[in-house]
Amino acid sequence: MRGTMLYGPRDVRFEERPDPTILDPTDALIRIAAACVCGSDLWPYRGIAPITEPTPMGHEYCGIVEEVGSAVTSIKPGQFVVGSFFASDNTCPNCQSGYQSSCIHRESIGGAQAPLLRVPLADGTLVATPEVPSARVIPSLLTASDVLGTGWFAATAANVKSGATVVVVGDGAVGLLGILSARQMGAERIIAMSRNTLRQKLAREFGATDIVVERGEEGVERIKDMTHGIGADSVLECVGTQEAMMQAIHSTRPGGYVSYVGVPHGVELSGQELFFAHVHLHGGPAPVRHYLPRLIDLVWNGEISPGKVFDLELPLSQVAEGYRAMDERRAIKTLLRP
Amino acid sequence: MRGTMLYGPRDVRFEERPDPTILDPTDALIRIAAACVCGSDLWPYRGIAPITEPTPMGHEYCGIVEEVGSAVTSIKPGQFVVGSFFASDNTCPNCQSGYQSSCIHRESIGGAQAPLLRVPLADGTLVATPEVPSARVIPSLLTASDVLGTGWFAATAANVKSGATVVVVGDGAVGLLGILSARQMGAERIIAMSRNTLRQKLAREFGATDIVVERGEEGVERIKDMTHGIGADSVLECVGTQEAMMQAIHSTRPGGYVSYVGVPHGVELSGQELFFAHVHLHGGPAPVRHYLPRLIDLVWNGEISPGKVFDLELPLSQVAEGYRAMDERRAIKTLLRP
Repeated sequence: MRGTMLYGPRDVRFEERPDPTILDPTDALIRIAAACVCGSDLWPYRGIAPITEPTPMGHEYCGIVEEVGSAVTSIKPGQFVVGSFFASDNTCPNCQSGYQSSCIHRESIGGAQAPLLRVPLADGTLVATPEVPSARVIPSLLTASDVLGTGWFAATAANVKSGATVVVVGDGAVGLLGILSARQMGAERIIAMSRNTLRQKLAREFGATDIVVERGEEGVERIKDMTHGIGADSVLECVGTQEAMMQAIHSTRPGGYVSYVGVPHGVELSGQELFFAHVHLHGGPAPVRHYLPRLIDLVWNGEISPGKVFDLELPLSQVAEGYRAMDERRAIKTLLRP
Repeated sequence: MRGTMLYGPRDVRFEERPDPTILDPTDALIRIAAACVCGSDLWPYRGIAPITEPTPMGHEYCGIVEEVGSAVTSIKPGQFVVGSFFASDNTCPNCQSGYQSSCIHRESIGGAQAPLLRVPLADGTLVATPEVPSARVIPSLLTASDVLGTGWFAATAANVKSGATVVVVGDGAVGLLGILSARQMGAERIIAMSRNTLRQKLAREFGATDIVVERGEEGVERIKDMTHGIGADSVLECVGTQEAMMQAIHSTRPGGYVSYVGVPHGVELSGQELFFAHVHLHGGPAPVRHYLPRLIDLVWNGEISPGKVFDLELPLSQVAEGYRAMDERRAIKTLLRP
């Protein structure tokens, strides 16, 4: 088959690769229905998180089970499945407490930007849809694999409750789906921080009630103005930079909640500043597996359409252009069809 | 009157001071029944948090109301009251959400290590006991003013629940009362990290089920050994140093809770490390006013005896020795009688 490899900064190649095979009895092979480029793929693409060797790319996936190992019991060939970007056994104490992305046996998924993918720990990682879905719903199911699950975790970790005032820092796909998630959780007011007209439009479509274009301390002042000088109940930090994190912390009321769901790059928090900010802080890799059954349901029943974040669709063979478009912010998120 | 002043590192003087008077109509004057030295007083005492001018010391207090300003309605002369170390109006949005220590009108209390104290915002800051208490119960009531309230906040912010496994980092008075608080909240297992025999004994008296003497990464390994390799549900960081904070974070299970309640000194948190630790983090100045009614009840009904943290009792005039004894760790906490 041909699959996606990153060789170095901005050097994405779609090239001949060995077909994946079952290596462990708990593996499954998935025939990819759709894959995509993740915001987090841009860190190594831009050379900010350098790679040490050519690396198979892609960790968001859904598709038909082609083959399973001898120890796989709940997943069967022919099923349509969605899986998390971390494989998990779904039985260890961390999985049991809802933190499958810290499973003691977790393995990173890699190589999903290809027609065929090996998924370890298939029983604990994959969730089957009720039937094989129509083509129309596949993009939305695909988002459950990471970007929607991560937005959902952002809203959960920021303790979004019915009636809450929520701020979302970051207008990438995760931030936009954080808005959708906050809306599902009953937030009354959702303030999107964005200066991009196209993204503002999608933010409103997903449930944002207000847009703030200012950033940094100016952005914080705007949020304070809108919240009786106090700050928001819940703030979702969906970028991963120092500026975004401080903007999030300073926009939160004392006793409020800040979540952060993108791998932080160069973020350092002063203990004393955090102490007097008086906020709750929670984040980390989203336990997507925990949310998958619920998110698949919501998509299946047509209650949410997170697939709208894909504003560029390309054949897998043009994956390099998919990266370029996102890097240059010409696209929010690129869907790849094998 | 004579009151306690800090002039510089290790230079505590008990000297003639003007009697405090009512300055604002919302003030009260309190005749101090007992005061004490706080662990946080040791930061300026040691010169780690330098002062710029001679400073009246003491922010933990209880006593009889001597006089109130014209706007004070709920507090009356003759009542015995306990107050928080931050004055608060108890009506602003932050107070209403239970974060009185971030009251938008908050004022620091200073000068409680003296016979007479001015307390601003008396209605929002002070809580009266049912009657004037017996001398026996005064030390326990005094702890509610800060050290018990802070330990209680530590346990609350670390989400201590019935049946939980809890670790307490720090065997000072706050850590010890964090143990007492966790016990009250129904923790099943409470692991005290302490290498001091006397403090270990008090820790067990307050409810600790296990003692760990190792520190740093060795201490973390011991906690992991005791928790199936996963870490504790709730960890209370009651020191305020980088080592204690990292010990706390690394001792917590993914999805678990870390609280920190001492002003952090030199603490810097790496966003990426925090991200993969996957913990909840919450802390700040304890909203003591929020807990005062409950804590006074528990003491009044004899359900808890937090006053046991005082292992040295001195007349106010010997306050300098009270600081020395705590600085040299000869005393856990010094009670001062006018």
